[in-house]
Amino acid sequence: MSTSLLIPGVVVIQPISYESFMIMKVSKVVVQKRSKYQNIEVVELSEYGKALVLDGLVQSTEVDEYIYHESLVHPAMITHPNPRKVLIIGGGEGATLREVLKHSTVEEATMVDIDADVVEICKQYLPELHSGSFLNTKARVVIADGKEFVEKTSDKYDVIILDLTDPYASEIAYELYTEKFYRRIFEILTDDGIMVTQAGSSFYYEEVYDRVLSSIKNVFPIVKEYNVWIPSFGYACNFIIGSKRYSPDDLNPEVVDKRLRDRGVSTRFYSGRTHIALMNLPIYRRRRSTTS
Amino acid sequence: MSTSLLIPGVVVIQPISYESFMIMKVSKVVVQKRSKYQNIEVVELSEYGKALVLDGLVQSTEVDEYIYHESLVHPAMITHPNPRKVLIIGGGEGATLREVLKHSTVEEATMVDIDADVVEICKQYLPELHSGSFLNTKARVVIADGKEFVEKTSDKYDVIILDLTDPYASEIAYELYTEKFYRRIFEILTDDGIMVTQAGSSFYYEEVYDRVLSSIKNVFPIVKEYNVWIPSFGYACNFIIGSKRYSPDDLNPEVVDKRLRDRGVSTRFYSGRTHIALMNLPIYRRRRSTTS
Amino acid sequence: MSTSLLIPGVVVIQPISYESFMIMKVSKVVVQKRSKYQNIEVVELSEYGKALVLDGLVQSTEVDEYIYHESLVHPAMITHPNPRKVLIIGGGEGATLREVLKHSTVEEATMVDIDADVVEICKQYLPELHSGSFLNTKARVVIADGKEFVEKTSDKYDVIILDLTDPYASEIAYELYTEKFYRRIFEILTDDGIMVTQAGSSFYYEEVYDRVLSSIKNVFPIVKEYNVWIPSFGYACNFIIGSKRYSPDDLNPEVVDKRLRDRGVSTRFYSGRTHIALMNLPIYRRRRSTTS
Amino acid sequence: MSTSLLIPGVVVIQPISYESFMIMKVSKVVVQKRSKYQNIEVVELSEYGKALVLDGLVQSTEVDEYIYHESLVHPAMITHPNPRKVLIIGGGEGATLREVLKHSTVEEATMVDIDADVVEICKQYLPELHSGSFLNTKARVVIADGKEFVEKTSDKYDVIILDLTDPYASEIAYELYTEKFYRRIFEILTDDGIMVTQAGSSFYYEEVYDRVLSSIKNVFPIVKEYNVWIPSFGYACNFIIGSKRYSPDDLNPEVVDKRLRDRGVSTRFYSGRTHIALMNLPIYRRRRSTTS
Repeated sequence: MSTSLLIPGVVVIQPISYESFMIMKVSKVVVQKRSKYQNIEVVELSEYGKALVLDGLVQSTEVDEYIYHESLVHPAMITHPNPRKVLIIGGGEGATLREVLKHSTVEEATMVDIDADVVEICKQYLPELHSGSFLNTKARVVIADGKEFVEKTSDKYDVIILDLTDPYASEIAYELYTEKFYRRIFEILTDDGIMVTQAGSSFYYEEVYDRVLSSIKNVFPIVKEYNVWIPSFGYACNFIIGSKRYSPDDLNPEVVDKRLRDRGVSTRFYSGRTHIALMNLPIYRRRRSTTS
Repeated sequence: MSTSLLIPGVVVIQPISYESFMIMKVSKVVVQKRSKYQNIEVVELSEYGKALVLDGLVQSTEVDEYIYHESLVHPAMITHPNPRKVLIIGGGEGATLREVLKHSTVEEATMVDIDADVVEICKQYLPELHSGSFLNTKARVVIADGKEFVEKTSDKYDVIILDLTDPYASEIAYELYTEKFYRRIFEILTDDGIMVTQAGSSFYYEEVYDRVLSSIKNVFPIVKEYNVWIPSFGYACNFIIGSKRYSPDDLNPEVVDKRLRDRGVSTRFYSGRTHIALMNLPIYRRRRSTTS
Repeated sequence: MSTSLLIPGVVVIQPISYESFMIMKVSKVVVQKRSKYQNIEVVELSEYGKALVLDGLVQSTEVDEYIYHESLVHPAMITHPNPRKVLIIGGGEGATLREVLKHSTVEEATMVDIDADVVEICKQYLPELHSGSFLNTKARVVIADGKEFVEKTSDKYDVIILDLTDPYASEIAYELYTEKFYRRIFEILTDDGIMVTQAGSSFYYEEVYDRVLSSIKNVFPIVKEYNVWIPSFGYACNFIIGSKRYSPDDLNPEVVDKRLRDRGVSTRFYSGRTHIALMNLPIYRRRRSTTS
Repeated sequence: MSTSLLIPGVVVIQPISYESFMIMKVSKVVVQKRSKYQNIEVVELSEYGKALVLDGLVQSTEVDEYIYHESLVHPAMITHPNPRKVLIIGGGEGATLREVLKHSTVEEATMVDIDADVVEICKQYLPELHSGSFLNTKARVVIADGKEFVEKTSDKYDVIILDLTDPYASEIAYELYTEKFYRRIFEILTDDGIMVTQAGSSFYYEEVYDRVLSSIKNVFPIVKEYNVWIPSFGYACNFIIGSKRYSPDDLNPEVVDKRLRDRGVSTRFYSGRTHIALMNLPIYRRRRSTTS
């Protein structure tokens, strides 16, 4: 007999895929709002602490958000030898911004989120996630459509981080996963610039993932995939780096650790050894062999 | 709006932890039996194919069992330079046996499972998993209590693989996760022998995991942990190696790949690069820092 | 703390309405088949015994099917003083046929079900439901589209019983809930004939129910609604009688009991008192007052 | 294919019985509090409106609470020809009080609830339920243990209404379902007094129900059971009347309607006809015949 029993009450039913779901116990609902773009909820999950939930999908939880945000931000930031100007599209929780600002090389970090309500709610109810990053003098927060922002900007960035809702989850982020968009990202990167995007699940949504991957390959000379299990997502989240000059594969653990140290970056998940692990772990696929 | 909807019908509700659960769509129930020890079910899950379910917990599925079984078997087998005699406790599906027998160095592989019904049902209904390994002339299948078997045996083994139900899941396997048991395992290993056990989830069941880990540390001079996300489990499964002489950390990708090649082992997930990834990926913890 | 805990394992998730669902523990899956028309499953539910499930919706269970079938059949049959020729559309389990054949006045009972697979599976796996009624010499089973059957028949019936899947559940039964269909039913009833249909839930699907109700009112001079809670459905099931001459409201308990006795009908739920209860209980409505 | 799909997000999983559960979509969580006695939640359920949930069990919802409260209060109140002094134990929502105060014969209605937090939260967040009844000059609200209150009181009551959590749900109400308690209730009733208790589900919890029923039969000369389906409970709720002189079976619809009219009681579910229905509907039983 199993030791786990489902104790009735309020729960979140979260889709993992087309026909797999995760049930998580809710101990408290902190705030709920229907914004112009999505349903926004801040809840306390009994096993994961406070969590931001958009359209029924967990985005970040107190307990494991560091795994997601460190895996999203640091491989690209560390691969670049001197990232000074950084652009974040999405990332309303402010946790991606928090990780970017840990790098002392950064002179300006611009975060562009389409949904002012998400940013406001995170500011007010999720200080555990942004840790004051919104107040950092190097930070600039813009409420705008990411696509329009990158079309209009005349700035150039060393690193661009796309921290969006899943490519298959909704229509909000759809256009930010297209080749056309990546071409514009390429244009507004410096000559040695690098971008990274979260890319949902290659295991459960293989076709969508492959489309995103090949779009990035069509644009960038150096492309690198990696994936990391995020407990509260119920799956390993994929990330794709597109780079003009530097490859994350060229770094050894010592270089990674030195750069972290030199820039004053302290982490809980990411390190030189983690970098090596992420860059060598097979990409999960449901249908195809993973070692090809 | 999310693209995933829960279509009503027959599902499995599987515990991931104390208060997190996974719902998986069942397309067919192939066979169900209450054995002396546990509820045995072979079902077809719409997203994972045929699956063995013991007491409501997915043990192996057609789609992702190779990730689990390759991760359990090959790091220990490859770390040993010449594994000839191998003992498997548990592993009724025959898939662990299948992976062990891929190594041409193996002269005898003994599999000891307590539950004859599990073995019979897997033989009959899950050829996808055992792939005929039960018929291999090097294979010996013993129906016995693993604890009693290791107490009585006068044989010595190069590699011992513990492929048991989770340490917190039931009472069947409880005594096979104790220091007393590991001391006996140590005794029946050759002087350069190595053992590995699956160890459930360090993230969700930290205390149980820590007890297992420290028991192994009390017995073996070389101990190595690693964890791998298994999609149909809903979490990253932990493994712990206890070794007398050889360490998996001492292998580089080239050596791993050479040994695989020399022994004629073909794999889908495990490789030299995967070995490096597994040995460097942080162990997931809910409460403590993972990089300590 | 609640005394009920959800023990993980195989369950059925059954829709009650648009946004309410019922979870029922499955102890065994007896047979599953995809027919030309629907998914057919016979399962054992731990609290309701053997059950027929069509497209994920429980149709009948061992434990409470008598409540449904007695409520469907006897009010109409008893309201008619001498039902000799009876037509059943649907009712593949054979349980409606079983109840009809209890009335000694019946000389011929014709059952028309569209799905030969349902009838075959029920015959073989659910003897608890049909109790041999298929073998009764007064019974005639026709595999045909109910709509086509009534269009073509030149027979006349005293009582017609429509035992269909819910009017909102699928497309199979859709045309058997229309005014056009009821007009044809009216034509093939004798001059004092009476029909009854199950009609799903007036509480959860008020608009669909009202459409069915007004269609019957447009055709029959005497119309009577009633509803009965069916535990394994999770709601009170509605029934609507359309009658040419006799009204169920005109019977007192003594007359009902005498007719049951005279015809040799033994029941578990229906009786003279039950008849009075059903004919006086308010119809459940979500939006409108129920006593109007 | 079914028309109902479970849209992921926040839901309540409510036990119906040992192995049946109901999932209801939550559109908003209004307030949550852990009181000394229980978990108190006010939520908005998408299909049932605002609801009071205690320990994961729905007590009352905006959409169907009138069915429960009218069925609890009016049969006993109408059976008594002149109820002037009424005692309610439990009923923190104030809706039972609301129904009692509709009877113009009532001079004093005393409500005793153990949990001040339930009463306060209902006052503040559920005006739809109490409709101002707490402010009625005939109403007296006492925060006290119902058992201690009835032991100490020297008053006599014409009608006593026990509006408690289910007899099997928790330990709070346990002692208010015992023969000892009913003996004391008998003592503090006037010579023609009448009591009624809600009694959970006779179908799903037959043994507990039978114990309660026989306790009441051991104390009162006239005992009457009835049951009513409450949609948001997922089952038919049972009620038991214990009476010293008057029987609800002796009333015909005309008398019921006249008393309602004379006392100025307007209702949505209960009426003379409903009274007849409730008093004649079989009691649902899972194992035994219901018509005995």
